[in-house]
Amino acid sequence: MTEPDAAVTSDHPADPRLAQALIDATAGRFGNTRSKLRALGDEAPRPPRTALGVEAYRDWTDEAMQWVAGTGVPALGFPPEMGGTGDYGAAVTGFEMLGHGDLSLTVKAGVHWGLFGGAVANLGTERHHHLGRAIIDGSLPGCFAMTETGHGSDVQSLLTTATYDPATDELVVHSPSPAARKDYIGGAARSARMAAVFAQLVVDGESEGVHCVLVPIRDENGEPMPGVTIGDCGAKGGLTGVDNGRLMFDEVRVPRTNLLGRYGDIDDQGRYHSPIESRGRRFFTMLGTLVRGRISVAGGANAASRSALEIATKYAEQRTQFTAPGTDTEVALLDYRTHQRKLLPRIATAYALIFAQNDLVSMMHDVQSATGLDEAAQRELETMAAGIKAYATDFATETIQVCREACGGAGYLTANRLVVLRADTDVFTTFEGDNTVLLQLVAKSLLTNFQRSFGAMDTIEMVRFGSRTVADQVVERTSVRGLVQRFRDVWSDALPFTDRLEQVRLFTDRETHMLEGLARRLRRAGDPGEDAFAIANSAQDHLVATAVAHVERNVLESFIAGIEGAADADARHLLERLCDLFALSTLEKHRAWYLEHDRLTPDRSKALTATVNQLCAELRPQARTLVEGFGIPNRWLATEMMGAEAV
Amino acid sequence: MTEPDAAVTSDHPADPRLAQALIDATAGRFGNTRSKLRALGDEAPRPPRTALGVEAYRDWTDEAMQWVAGTGVPALGFPPEMGGTGDYGAAVTGFEMLGHGDLSLTVKAGVHWGLFGGAVANLGTERHHHLGRAIIDGSLPGCFAMTETGHGSDVQSLLTTATYDPATDELVVHSPSPAARKDYIGGAARSARMAAVFAQLVVDGESEGVHCVLVPIRDENGEPMPGVTIGDCGAKGGLTGVDNGRLMFDEVRVPRTNLLGRYGDIDDQGRYHSPIESRGRRFFTMLGTLVRGRISVAGGANAASRSALEIATKYAEQRTQFTAPGTDTEVALLDYRTHQRKLLPRIATAYALIFAQNDLVSMMHDVQSATGLDEAAQRELETMAAGIKAYATDFATETIQVCREACGGAGYLTANRLVVLRADTDVFTTFEGDNTVLLQLVAKSLLTNFQRSFGAMDTIEMVRFGSRTVADQVVERTSVRGLVQRFRDVWSDALPFTDRLEQVRLFTDRETHMLEGLARRLRRAGDPGEDAFAIANSAQDHLVATAVAHVERNVLESFIAGIEGAADADARHLLERLCDLFALSTLEKHRAWYLEHDRLTPDRSKALTATVNQLCAELRPQARTLVEGFGIPNRWLATEMMGAEAV
Repeated sequence: MTEPDAAVTSDHPADPRLAQALIDATAGRFGNTRSKLRALGDEAPRPPRTALGVEAYRDWTDEAMQWVAGTGVPALGFPPEMGGTGDYGAAVTGFEMLGHGDLSLTVKAGVHWGLFGGAVANLGTERHHHLGRAIIDGSLPGCFAMTETGHGSDVQSLLTTATYDPATDELVVHSPSPAARKDYIGGAARSARMAAVFAQLVVDGESEGVHCVLVPIRDENGEPMPGVTIGDCGAKGGLTGVDNGRLMFDEVRVPRTNLLGRYGDIDDQGRYHSPIESRGRRFFTMLGTLVRGRISVAGGANAASRSALEIATKYAEQRTQFTAPGTDTEVALLDYRTHQRKLLPRIATAYALIFAQNDLVSMMHDVQSATGLDEAAQRELETMAAGIKAYATDFATETIQVCREACGGAGYLTANRLVVLRADTDVFTTFEGDNTVLLQLVAKSLLTNFQRSFGAMDTIEMVRFGSRTVADQVVERTSVRGLVQRFRDVWSDALPFTDRLEQVRLFTDRETHMLEGLARRLRRAGDPGEDAFAIANSAQDHLVATAVAHVERNVLESFIAGIEGAADADARHLLERLCDLFALSTLEKHRAWYLEHDRLTPDRSKALTATVNQLCAELRPQARTLVEGFGIPNRWLATEMMGAEAV
Repeated sequence: MTEPDAAVTSDHPADPRLAQALIDATAGRFGNTRSKLRALGDEAPRPPRTALGVEAYRDWTDEAMQWVAGTGVPALGFPPEMGGTGDYGAAVTGFEMLGHGDLSLTVKAGVHWGLFGGAVANLGTERHHHLGRAIIDGSLPGCFAMTETGHGSDVQSLLTTATYDPATDELVVHSPSPAARKDYIGGAARSARMAAVFAQLVVDGESEGVHCVLVPIRDENGEPMPGVTIGDCGAKGGLTGVDNGRLMFDEVRVPRTNLLGRYGDIDDQGRYHSPIESRGRRFFTMLGTLVRGRISVAGGANAASRSALEIATKYAEQRTQFTAPGTDTEVALLDYRTHQRKLLPRIATAYALIFAQNDLVSMMHDVQSATGLDEAAQRELETMAAGIKAYATDFATETIQVCREACGGAGYLTANRLVVLRADTDVFTTFEGDNTVLLQLVAKSLLTNFQRSFGAMDTIEMVRFGSRTVADQVVERTSVRGLVQRFRDVWSDALPFTDRLEQVRLFTDRETHMLEGLARRLRRAGDPGEDAFAIANSAQDHLVATAVAHVERNVLESFIAGIEGAADADARHLLERLCDLFALSTLEKHRAWYLEHDRLTPDRSKALTATVNQLCAELRPQARTLVEGFGIPNRWLATEMMGAEAV
């Protein structure tokens, strides 16, 4: 589409200096990788703007994978002993940047280097290090065969078996039923030569639980290996360039040493050993090391949300609709309150998520770089990764849809990319953990911590303690130590909504109260004679809402801490207003809860909405600067309606 | 996908007798057409389950159009003088039924017969009746060229001109700028031979406002006519079978008689005449006659929502996830509260929308069958059509997405249709009127009526009167006259949420209060010295919310009235519970408003959520029966995961 009306120009151009200051302020610990990939923008493969057929898109993606290998980003994610550089945080940041481009490519890269490569790196032992080079340079394309037709989220119940045969010193990998078929496996349909297969390991007639085994699935000519049946999931809602497929194993034999045995191995005498006694803990430890996948999905979702917001915001500046009463001037879409409401709070949340993701990646880098396993830190990382993944992907689904609608008919054309972003990210709420399941994991982990800390306290003590703990954390992170006393003094008084500590108080109070209520409700589930399923099930919506409250409070804290790090005063000022808008639009969304729990009076609740409207109007002139501050390379972003030609 | 686990069977099979009773209860005034199309289900073209390329899908759609012509449905929608039967309500109901199948076909049919044919029928005069036969049998494929690149919702500002040239007795159709290009026009890219072009009519140097002119755009060989430049919008987010295109006119000449002149014509002497003096009223009258398009889009959206709900509900019955604590039994998805919450309130809303759509279609049939124009009835119809269109299409967008996510990875496969339904209906919120714009139209129309009725009353009188009026309407429609007194007596007391009149009271109260507030806010806009745009703009979110409240109240009323018509006692009983769930989940969504306005106490608000949860659990065993009660032909619905083979 050409410019709708060339005569109309925006009164609110971007401020390039300020946009750059925003880019700098949000760069995070691995900002060098961001800059490096941004500089590559012009030579990066541009996402197809036309609808490619399934096979053509797969071809495009495979070719683009070679370009990714050449950027050096994949090597960042592997330890030196596999030929990498051990810059885990930088690797994840690099994949997040790729997410501003084509998402089939991002996901395919994530499957091969992140999931398949990650399984070898994190679950394998020295004997698998030699695979590093071929994984890093892409010459051994792999896939990650976990999900089965019958079991997705419930990985512990997978049906595929890997049975040790001492006679031949081999593992026999087998799919005992149609429900055991590996399904939706990215890379399986066409490109992968090796699969990291998750299966119930059976040694000496004893089931040792789910382990991961490397199984060659195609020979050098691309033909399926004997006993391996490969299917194609065919066309999907999006991610057309990713060749999702299905795998069935008919007693496929691989050497015993193909077991990725870091957390459970079979020795030369055919005996099973594990450094972790408990089967449950062993399983969750293995799964835990794969946390990078979830973090990468969150990063990709965030990148896609930003792309959509930049496209829709620029359209809303150039597109006019109706004349103002009594004038001949057509009004730009973004001057309408309903349109501001659609885009500006979401731009604010997108900024919040940049900081939250930076913190998450930084935490991940430290945990995965440490020598030895810090179980508490690992658990905290997993909880945060699950929560941010669910929050970021739900946000992307909803935001990209709003952006499509905000661009009307133009938004529906493939050439303008929004529908592609929407279709590609759709499944992000499902893969690497269904969001509803993940949020329950988050809440359960919070409950565990809560019960450990508060077992002996009464309710009022608990709430007070919880609030104080969180307040201390924020204060510590934001280095505003002088505010501690004030924070405690005013705890029970209502401050203006734009007071940062009042925002933190409201977020924290909600989380703590919900968690406490949840603990009380679920306490009964363990009692004799109680129907544990019925009790847990009836609290399921409460569980999910508590997890969201927890994630939101953490995202707010990351935003607050992130602003502290901004060097430029103007950028900091703008980020302060954005943080207000994120905080208040989030509170507004949950205002029924605050009213129901007497945390807001009706008048204050109405004032919240008025404040959000006012913040939208205040930030509106900066909208272009804000989206340019995302720092998305133009070549990746460009759409037909922004004047780019279709490729 | 095969059945995930053949060993698991549902404990809650459908009750075929009750399902049939639901089908009968929801059949509506044009139920014969529903039955007829349902009976055709087996011979109807089955929606493609694989991703067809753009041209292949267009071919499929064109072929299927011939099948539609053969069903006799199109003839229902035309007056006898054009060769039709004048069964307007039946025609719209027929297209709604088609919406259970392929939506590219439904939209293409809607464009040709509904929009193009409708323009000729409603805006044309006797001299255009001869076109009826070729339109009805599909041998003269047409398109509806209204939207331009620069103007969509603001139709009055279109830039294309049609200038009368007395020298040749012709109209000269012209696109003066790139912004005047006709854009996103269904049928234009490939199939249409004639376009109904909306343009500013200029006669004798005088602009008479937007009128519609028939312009041949392709010759018999499919080549563009001289002066007509045709473009292709290319791939879109969905509706791949519809060939959306672009039209530019370079002084294209057509006979004067090609003007569709019912509301404004040029006589043999070259003089312009119109039966409607006011240019504004003339324009809105013309547009008003095209209301059937919006009603059809709502019907198509509703059909798609039902398809998605049936697919997701059946999957949730067969798919298990995790074992219940202390057992070996895997739990069906639909036994989880979070899953019930996703599907059951939406099934209830889908039923509510069946009744609301039946009422809307019936009203449309009466208005369009009447001799002479009843302006008040026409305005009421337009308001209701705009409101239901916006509500139904927003509901479809959100519901189909939830259904996709509820089916996990299986939901993402094209073979399982959800992603296709989602992609195809995406643009329904945009075409035939952007929803945000439509809801503002609804609210403005309510304001006009409101100010007309209540100009002289004070606020309290207004609210009382408004409530009474609505109460009277409901009581009249539901024939529960005996309840009137009780209704008035208890007006200010809290009844149980499951009391029908309490539900109506809560819905009505919200609408009335919002409308009154809006009137007060906007009154200032006309005062001298006030910035009318700023005042209106600051109330824009209030305007939109008021319109939604109005639509919801009407949908509830239609549901209540619809239940009265159900012959079967069991069906009526089930519908009563569904109506509760629709009403209470809607109230729950808006509970912040009720709390802010002291209509609900915090405790009552919490009880609302508990009641919704309880209703979900109560209705869960009937879920299969409820979706079978939609009466969707199996051949149209069948997906790979339900055992159907891909075509």
